Amino acid sequence: MPEAASAQAARATIGDSEFDRDTAVTRREAGVYDIDLNVGWTIQNALNGGYLLAVLGRALADALPHADPFSISAHYLTASRPGPAVVRTDVIRTGRRLSTGQASLFQRDEEGQEVERIRVLASYGDLDALPDDVRTTAEPPAIPPMDQCFGPQDAPDRVAGRSAIADRLFLKLDPSTLGWAVGAPSGKGEMRSWFGLADGRDADPLSLLLAVDALPPTAFEIGLSGWVPTVELTVHVRCRPAPGPLRITITTRNLAGGFLEEDAEVWDSTDRLVAQSRQLASVRLG
Amino acid sequence: MPEAASAQAARATIGDSEFDRDTAVTRREAGVYDIDLNVGWTIQNALNGGYLLAVLGRALADALPHADPFSISAHYLTASRPGPAVVRTDVIRTGRRLSTGQASLFQRDEEGQEVERIRVLASYGDLDALPDDVRTTAEPPAIPPMDQCFGPQDAPDRVAGRSAIADRLFLKLDPSTLGWAVGAPSGKGEMRSWFGLADGRDADPLSLLLAVDALPPTAFEIGLSGWVPTVELTVHVRCRPAPGPLRITITTRNLAGGFLEEDAEVWDSTDRLVAQSRQLASVRLG
Repeated sequence: MPEAASAQAARATIGDSEFDRDTAVTRREAGVYDIDLNVGWTIQNALNGGYLLAVLGRALADALPHADPFSISAHYLTASRPGPAVVRTDVIRTGRRLSTGQASLFQRDEEGQEVERIRVLASYGDLDALPDDVRTTAEPPAIPPMDQCFGPQDAPDRVAGRSAIADRLFLKLDPSTLGWAVGAPSGKGEMRSWFGLADGRDADPLSLLLAVDALPPTAFEIGLSGWVPTVELTVHVRCRPAPGPLRITITTRNLAGGFLEEDAEVWDSTDRLVAQSRQLASVRLG
Repeated sequence: MPEAASAQAARATIGDSEFDRDTAVTRREAGVYDIDLNVGWTIQNALNGGYLLAVLGRALADALPHADPFSISAHYLTASRPGPAVVRTDVIRTGRRLSTGQASLFQRDEEGQEVERIRVLASYGDLDALPDDVRTTAEPPAIPPMDQCFGPQDAPDRVAGRSAIADRLFLKLDPSTLGWAVGAPSGKGEMRSWFGLADGRDADPLSLLLAVDALPPTAFEIGLSGWVPTVELTVHVRCRPAPGPLRITITTRNLAGGFLEEDAEVWDSTDRLVAQSRQLASVRLG
């Protein structure tokens, strides 16, 4: 169980947690939802792309007859800012096993004009209705025990440049993928970490949309610095995660032409591969 | 060079080939394109999903200020049939480096009602404008020489169940991933093949959208039979492919709950990783 959670009097629960409050959308009319994007999920000044995807995913879960994102594809258009935003959804098709929808996140610019931030296509289903056959050949990641890993909780509080999201997440990174943090990147495009929410809330399909984009960019370990903005991110949620901390691996194999892919695997406490994602990101070579 | 091509008097060229003719869209009005989906790209009675993605990709290349699909995400809604179809595109955002658009493929049902087949989100750019830095750690696939691989060309013509697409493609599959064809699947979710177009047309970014979905499903080699319909397919085109045959690997690591992912890598004749894709597909356990 995450230390940050066990240190609390009571752990937050699914439905009553920072993540749930900060991704809650208010239905204004059919298919239209209001949200106040919370500054607590910013990295430096940018809102985390996984947090934004979870907001869109929650709106679609309300708009569609199915609740779980089986496959959700997001194209990031402009940088979102903390504050008011509107999610507009469109039900494309509803079926017995799967429903497909579209959603867009909008904010108003200085002139009050609506600007689209993100557009999403997603196929939703019911994870609990799937047969329990598993023939996965993928192996759970080898990450050292939590007490041998390191995260923001191990750093002095309030250091310059500390991002707000560090207080929302429970991250314990594998030291062998932390070389970048001490100026000695491994050169390998890998990042591995234990993952949880700081208030102890267990994972669910919507929080997995945050999890896949919550680790430091693999570009750091390749030896690059600077911003790595996401162009497109697609997440497959394959199973409802069991309670307890998650293990996440991010791998980059193809850095070329100023772009790279980040492949994420999310494993739950029962060694089940619960989510896979891939994103295309733009890199500034440092 | 593909044998099927060298056997011809003259190889087809980019812009003048079966693939170009069968994916050509006719602009009816701004953003709306007509196409006659060609029966030549069917597997049994179903049109290949990669062929359909290439049709949508060609329409978006015309509708957007950029010509190359950097990332294109397709959600498959209903089965397309050979015959007339309409592609409706929407320009979401145009930028200097990237433009983002949406496209939908429609056909009319028996009652003459328009039915949406596929919806796509895509970010387009200019592959030729990218810096030539390459830091890929991925290794080209080990596929035996072409003359030690097997494809439809090696099978007796006109056998029962031969699919039309077999005459459009040049496939030479690695024998070690062909066990399923002789009733002895390896149990590993891997498929490897040389790939080209039967008329010798070289690859370009649009034909890569076909290539990633053109091999037999990995499910066969896992020992499953039956149909493996695509739910969602996202392709990253990372480089303009060099002339000559491509090598494609498809890998499945997570078959569970009646779904699996298929990860494709496409390598060109200069050992450059030119495309990566992932799809979520539904499987009927056989």
